[in-house]
Amino acid sequence: MTDMETASSLLENYDALLARAKELVILMTASGVLEWDMETKMPPRGIILRSQQLSLLSQFAHRLGTDPVIGSLISKIESDPGFGELNEVQRRNVHLIRKNYEEQTKLPEKLVAETARQRAIAIDVWKKAKASRDFSLFRPELEKVVDLKAQAAVMLKDVKGSPTPYDALVDDFEPRMTAAQIGPIFDELKAGLISITQRCQASPRQPNPGVLERFVPMDVQRRVAESLASFVLYDVKSGQAGGRIDETEHPFTQGYYDDVRITTHYHEKNPTSSIFSVLHEAGHATYEQNLPGGWMYQPVGAACSSGFHESQSRFVENIVGRSTEFWSFYLPKLKELTDGAFADVDLGSFVRAINQVKPSKIRVEADEVTYCLHIIVRFELERDIFAGKVKVSELPQLWNEKYAEYLGVKIENDSEGVMQDTHWAATYFGYFPSYALGNVYSGQILHAMERDLPDWRNSISRGDFSPVRGWLREHLYSLGNLYDPTDLLRRVTGEDINVRYYLDYLRSKYGELYGF
Amino acid sequence: MTDMETASSLLENYDALLARAKELVILMTASGVLEWDMETKMPPRGIILRSQQLSLLSQFAHRLGTDPVIGSLISKIESDPGFGELNEVQRRNVHLIRKNYEEQTKLPEKLVAETARQRAIAIDVWKKAKASRDFSLFRPELEKVVDLKAQAAVMLKDVKGSPTPYDALVDDFEPRMTAAQIGPIFDELKAGLISITQRCQASPRQPNPGVLERFVPMDVQRRVAESLASFVLYDVKSGQAGGRIDETEHPFTQGYYDDVRITTHYHEKNPTSSIFSVLHEAGHATYEQNLPGGWMYQPVGAACSSGFHESQSRFVENIVGRSTEFWSFYLPKLKELTDGAFADVDLGSFVRAINQVKPSKIRVEADEVTYCLHIIVRFELERDIFAGKVKVSELPQLWNEKYAEYLGVKIENDSEGVMQDTHWAATYFGYFPSYALGNVYSGQILHAMERDLPDWRNSISRGDFSPVRGWLREHLYSLGNLYDPTDLLRRVTGEDINVRYYLDYLRSKYGELYGF
Repeated sequence: MTDMETASSLLENYDALLARAKELVILMTASGVLEWDMETKMPPRGIILRSQQLSLLSQFAHRLGTDPVIGSLISKIESDPGFGELNEVQRRNVHLIRKNYEEQTKLPEKLVAETARQRAIAIDVWKKAKASRDFSLFRPELEKVVDLKAQAAVMLKDVKGSPTPYDALVDDFEPRMTAAQIGPIFDELKAGLISITQRCQASPRQPNPGVLERFVPMDVQRRVAESLASFVLYDVKSGQAGGRIDETEHPFTQGYYDDVRITTHYHEKNPTSSIFSVLHEAGHATYEQNLPGGWMYQPVGAACSSGFHESQSRFVENIVGRSTEFWSFYLPKLKELTDGAFADVDLGSFVRAINQVKPSKIRVEADEVTYCLHIIVRFELERDIFAGKVKVSELPQLWNEKYAEYLGVKIENDSEGVMQDTHWAATYFGYFPSYALGNVYSGQILHAMERDLPDWRNSISRGDFSPVRGWLREHLYSLGNLYDPTDLLRRVTGEDINVRYYLDYLRSKYGELYGF
Repeated sequence: MTDMETASSLLENYDALLARAKELVILMTASGVLEWDMETKMPPRGIILRSQQLSLLSQFAHRLGTDPVIGSLISKIESDPGFGELNEVQRRNVHLIRKNYEEQTKLPEKLVAETARQRAIAIDVWKKAKASRDFSLFRPELEKVVDLKAQAAVMLKDVKGSPTPYDALVDDFEPRMTAAQIGPIFDELKAGLISITQRCQASPRQPNPGVLERFVPMDVQRRVAESLASFVLYDVKSGQAGGRIDETEHPFTQGYYDDVRITTHYHEKNPTSSIFSVLHEAGHATYEQNLPGGWMYQPVGAACSSGFHESQSRFVENIVGRSTEFWSFYLPKLKELTDGAFADVDLGSFVRAINQVKPSKIRVEADEVTYCLHIIVRFELERDIFAGKVKVSELPQLWNEKYAEYLGVKIENDSEGVMQDTHWAATYFGYFPSYALGNVYSGQILHAMERDLPDWRNSISRGDFSPVRGWLREHLYSLGNLYDPTDLLRRVTGEDINVRYYLDYLRSKYGELYGF
């Protein structure tokens, strides 16, 4: 073979491999639409049929991802003398396809299908159990989920190089992150958050959350949601919109590039609840929408990790969305849109109220400071379940004990306790830590952004989100899934993970608001 | 082998075959949800991604349906000495799977995928071309569709035993029906309809359609739609609903058993438009919802044909929904729901107005009598396209000529002419005849039902649809896809296809309304 022939066969193999990966991406996005529909539009009786559809598509995805042709193409590509000449993007694509291939070939198709089916059932039962405050109804379904995930974790541990089965689950969301790394980070975070919380609680200068208790009709809240989407440059209204906003009890984002949808909930007597959920989900959505267009359908054309995703949702929700600068621009607009519902509220009172620090029971309603304490509870429980130290039946009591210890609140029933989140029903064990890691990342990203954009707060107060968006796109979104989280963090911020910046940001912000 | 072993291996093979068929059913219903979403909820920019998803799933369906294992299982089952002991349902399942297998193995996977992709593109371009009244924009996409369908028709002709390629397309919707059979039926129908139309037109007793021109806000129309759904026992509201109503320009029904959705359009100044489209689609939807539960996921657990589907939608829309008896019950309810918008309208004027016979340009707004003339135009054009007698570029002019001849109306532009329907863009050539066949069937079904339920009109005027539903379920829905249309028609009505009953029904109804 001549060099030319080698190169040509290398690229042909690479293209063939990418064609396989593209099918997998398209199939996953199709499943995504079915999941979205299940949560937002599906008639209730459709649940069994839907669980069969999702199970079948997950079987197809498994077959596609484990087709021996993929293994053979990877071998040919990696053993090709010209391999070193592939560029960084091409090599990353090969790496990501190989990681998925090796992990998926470890998992029996039957286990994958059974997990998908059990997921749909567990979500349905969780809804009913939560409505009737009856953990005993949910428990057997959750036990099945844990059993299926434990089987998968043991199988995946070695191929992922994870120290423990639980680490293999974490790796699904935050590649190469481990409980042993997360533990000390969360301990430092926990101590810092409890200290800030106590200082806020002890301050004589307390906000008046009553200023937020306004009646705003659903339709008006829907218009506010659209206006917020427009502020953060998430297009849901134009004839060529790439998104939409729907309603679910638990807000989420679902989509890929040109079709990225968010959901929110509207509570007529609590309009700020939807405001911050829309900002949060729009942070997720715009990350997806601003991935590099040329990488669509490639493994590298994806967000880096759940932690990085959360860094963006929390950045938009809290660092931007709960800032004085944002509200100095947006409060007059909100007053206008809500037809006087907030007419008597001044900027200072409003900003203090939306930043009230008050330990509470429900994660999704938690304030910025105590939020990660909710996550740390879940992380510690998950880790101990998969280490065999805790049983599903013990979760309610342990949950309540940790909430009493870290947050000082008393859980009255399991619907406001261990059953508050859909994640475990949805089989997402290993996911929760990424929420708190995302907050830690967001502090580091903020620090890095401020070096380049010292004036960013003024732009926000002028109603201009585009400099922030531009910076994030250039430094983060444009890198897609080119690096694992640890490496991406170093690229974006120049540093390894470091809790300090996030705690510094919180101390400075809340010190000012609470006067300490 | 003992007899026992034979039987057991026959049933094992049968079960294995049905398991394959079940996967195919589940996959098709998943595609159905994606199609529904594309028409109702998808952000516009998502169209390319969606077309890739649909194309991929159609490839998978093709692979599933043509898996050689299916051919081998069918051979084993049919050559099994115990084959004759399979019951009628089992034999029908084997027949339907074989028909699909033989047809699909004839079609190259590439052609199937290309057709699915072209379908999504053609629908998108059709929308734009229609909005800008520019057939030249749509023409190249339609030509590609015709070319792809012509390729498929030629390949399928022999395996289906269809006399001509066009008949192979018709067979997809109305198995074993041919243009040679349809031609004379439609000629008789055309003559009868033109005669009734002329008598109505000539009558001095003309309705006043102005009584229907009332302003009814969208939200009120949505409540009316839900109330109509409830009348015809299509559940879209309860916590265990199996349906939902959404909005699209062109109403349609999509779904299977426990998840059957309809769409409608709301025109604020023309509230009866949505009323009859909801009744029409609910007729389709309740057919699907009332198929025998035990046959779910089996080929036999499906509606018989497009023609029978249409017989049900037209039955509910027209035979029930435009009857004096229905409105004697429902007009007071409509007056109440619309808060007086129809306060001054009496029953007689209302019923005459909703049954006004007036040749028009738009099929979906056509009255009951002239409707099938729209269909006959389309049938004649389709037949001639695939016989090579007509080119796509000639369609606008021929369309306009036929409308002038059969309906006496002048088409001003192609958006109200040849581009009014989505079907051809959606690759559904061969589908249109089933609309008119459905009307013919509905007349025969009515005649049969009246023998058993002479009192059915009184039940409707008491607001009770359940006797009609019960009869339809017992005599039609419960048979699913157990028979081909011709055989089913004989089962349900005791007769072969016969235009007389439908024309008799129309003559009697319109003779009374118009006084001839």
